[in-house]
Amino acid sequence: MTEPLKVAIVGSGNWGSAIAKIVGHNVLKSDDFATEVKMYVYEEMVDGRKLTEIINTEHENIKYLKGHKLPENVVAVPDARDACREADILIFVLPHQFVRRICSNLQGHIKPTAVAISLIKGFDVHDKGLELISNVVRTMLSIDCAVLMGANIASEVAGENYCEATIGCKKPDFGKLLKKLFQTDYFRIVVVEDEITVELCGALKDIVGISADIIDCVYKKQVPEGEKPDEIYYKEKGTVDHVYRNVTATGAGFVDGLGYGDNTKAAVIRLGLMEMVKFCEEFYPGSKMSTFLESCGVADLVTTCYGGRNRRVAEAFVKTGKSIPELEKEMLNGQSLQGPPTAAEINIMLKAKNMEDRFPLFTAIHRICIRELEPQKFIDCLKNHPEHM
Amino acid sequence: MTEPLKVAIVGSGNWGSAIAKIVGHNVLKSDDFATEVKMYVYEEMVDGRKLTEIINTEHENIKYLKGHKLPENVVAVPDARDACREADILIFVLPHQFVRRICSNLQGHIKPTAVAISLIKGFDVHDKGLELISNVVRTMLSIDCAVLMGANIASEVAGENYCEATIGCKKPDFGKLLKKLFQTDYFRIVVVEDEITVELCGALKDIVGISADIIDCVYKKQVPEGEKPDEIYYKEKGTVDHVYRNVTATGAGFVDGLGYGDNTKAAVIRLGLMEMVKFCEEFYPGSKMSTFLESCGVADLVTTCYGGRNRRVAEAFVKTGKSIPELEKEMLNGQSLQGPPTAAEINIMLKAKNMEDRFPLFTAIHRICIRELEPQKFIDCLKNHPEHM
Repeated sequence: MTEPLKVAIVGSGNWGSAIAKIVGHNVLKSDDFATEVKMYVYEEMVDGRKLTEIINTEHENIKYLKGHKLPENVVAVPDARDACREADILIFVLPHQFVRRICSNLQGHIKPTAVAISLIKGFDVHDKGLELISNVVRTMLSIDCAVLMGANIASEVAGENYCEATIGCKKPDFGKLLKKLFQTDYFRIVVVEDEITVELCGALKDIVGISADIIDCVYKKQVPEGEKPDEIYYKEKGTVDHVYRNVTATGAGFVDGLGYGDNTKAAVIRLGLMEMVKFCEEFYPGSKMSTFLESCGVADLVTTCYGGRNRRVAEAFVKTGKSIPELEKEMLNGQSLQGPPTAAEINIMLKAKNMEDRFPLFTAIHRICIRELEPQKFIDCLKNHPEHM
Repeated sequence: MTEPLKVAIVGSGNWGSAIAKIVGHNVLKSDDFATEVKMYVYEEMVDGRKLTEIINTEHENIKYLKGHKLPENVVAVPDARDACREADILIFVLPHQFVRRICSNLQGHIKPTAVAISLIKGFDVHDKGLELISNVVRTMLSIDCAVLMGANIASEVAGENYCEATIGCKKPDFGKLLKKLFQTDYFRIVVVEDEITVELCGALKDIVGISADIIDCVYKKQVPEGEKPDEIYYKEKGTVDHVYRNVTATGAGFVDGLGYGDNTKAAVIRLGLMEMVKFCEEFYPGSKMSTFLESCGVADLVTTCYGGRNRRVAEAFVKTGKSIPELEKEMLNGQSLQGPPTAAEINIMLKAKNMEDRFPLFTAIHRICIRELEPQKFIDCLKNHPEHM
């Protein structure tokens, strides 16, 4: 009989807290794990009280995941070293810009036999270019690091909405253990060995997300809310065309009431996916095609592109002419969007290899973000996409 | 120098007419094709005039594709044999229930050297089960038949919105010719050899479309139109949570203003896609994974699932307790939905091989359509999906 494995969670934002709820429950169900889960919480004062104290007495992260109780065996710890010192499994789930700092703090203060899993989407951007977050963990802490990515919004997972995630883990035994740690009857896990592709999907999808926002803001002819069609045509195969006489500006007479331009959006998202595939092949050879069909791939991409989470910012970007950083300050309270800096870094890599032509969507998005290209010219850049040549 | 190839279009609905516009223009640009394109038009009277006469004088199919001019070299012909007798390439683009009748009419009246391409989505359902439409053409006319499928709504293609389609064609030379016939700068074509998978994608996607409609109608907690959030939370990574105090019924306090339940929908669509993949492997071995990433696969699936084209019917189905055929009569003017009969036929095939358990989504959708299962129980059927075991 081996010792039960101790689990620590590094991070306690909304995603970290949602995961703490799952992991806290799951460790109680299996002899493989120790019952206490330590969670590193960046200490801050909330309504005059320490956040760690609130979590440890009320069992709720009232700042980042209000309304969801955490299991009582999840213990908030304000010092990262204390949280991780004895852990066998480290779950990294904090904003990507803090990963280096925390790893540096943990160096020499974790078990050399520990293993990690990163739930962090995005790249680590530094002077020498892009690096996978899992690789920062691997290199700085000299331990193995798996990844978990998927179409997962923290509040939905915390609300126990049925959803899926993908674990990328090279070692099958560790993968099985991780599945036991994360899967519930509403949070469904598929484990694949192709861990790099899983992580790349999570890091690259936001670039394609901007494409979708641009299509929605620039190309879709929206029907004003509450507008009723003057006539409805029933077409082949049960689909419906609506005619809005007072809305159509084009004179063509037809506007599909359910989103004129849906096919364009689908084409753009697919081309984005193909550039993700090609980027992986080119810079991280060995991807399996099937990984792109997992939750980390198409599902997360599609949620990003149809969830419309940043559409308000994209719309302001198109209409006001302000820069992305200005809008982040005004509209997102200073929080930054992932897509534009990722697109910029990817562009440096593509330029260095003289490959911009082979990635016209990634390239166009970067040029739009830095205002070198008008959003209205986006589709023109895709007219001769290598996929169609 | 070989004779230029004569092209005939069999069908003149909205999709047939949109394709006639493209093909009519393209034959003029290449020496490979004869300049006249005959289009078989089912004769009917429109405003007291014959439809063929209207098309041949006004160059517009005012009944099925109003507002879009057809090239003058597209000639409407009311007799299918006359339209096809001399053709080297036959483009089949008519509702699937008419394919057998038209092929039977054409038997012995086409060139034995002719080749065909089917643009028809759906299966041919007959006493002995399901058959691919292309196969009906192949068998009944003893000619080759390629397929063209994709995320294509006729009115969007006719409106020259940028979009993509996939041609499935076993013979590379014929594939190249077909690309020349169909590709324009806004209608972008990828040719793959895996023609069966291309066609299966088009035939199966409607089952998954029903899943998406059910999620939208049953599971998504919609925020009433025009409702403004009371508070906005800025979360990690630039995403936004909205709090609607007077809307949330659950007490959890959080409703994402941009669609609570998006992740569930993404998971369900992905599981649908995985069942499509598995169905192809099981019943039509030899599929390539990459074909599912083409326009015929993910792109068409996603458009079907997010376009919401049948949501009104799905909503009425859930709320009124009426049967699908009743609703088709009331709401779709008697037009029939593709998904339910396809799901029923697929179910017969799965039952025969004792495989219902391996396709829980396909099976649940069928049971919901025949009112054997409540839509509210849909997610329960996916709790132990084989993908996650």
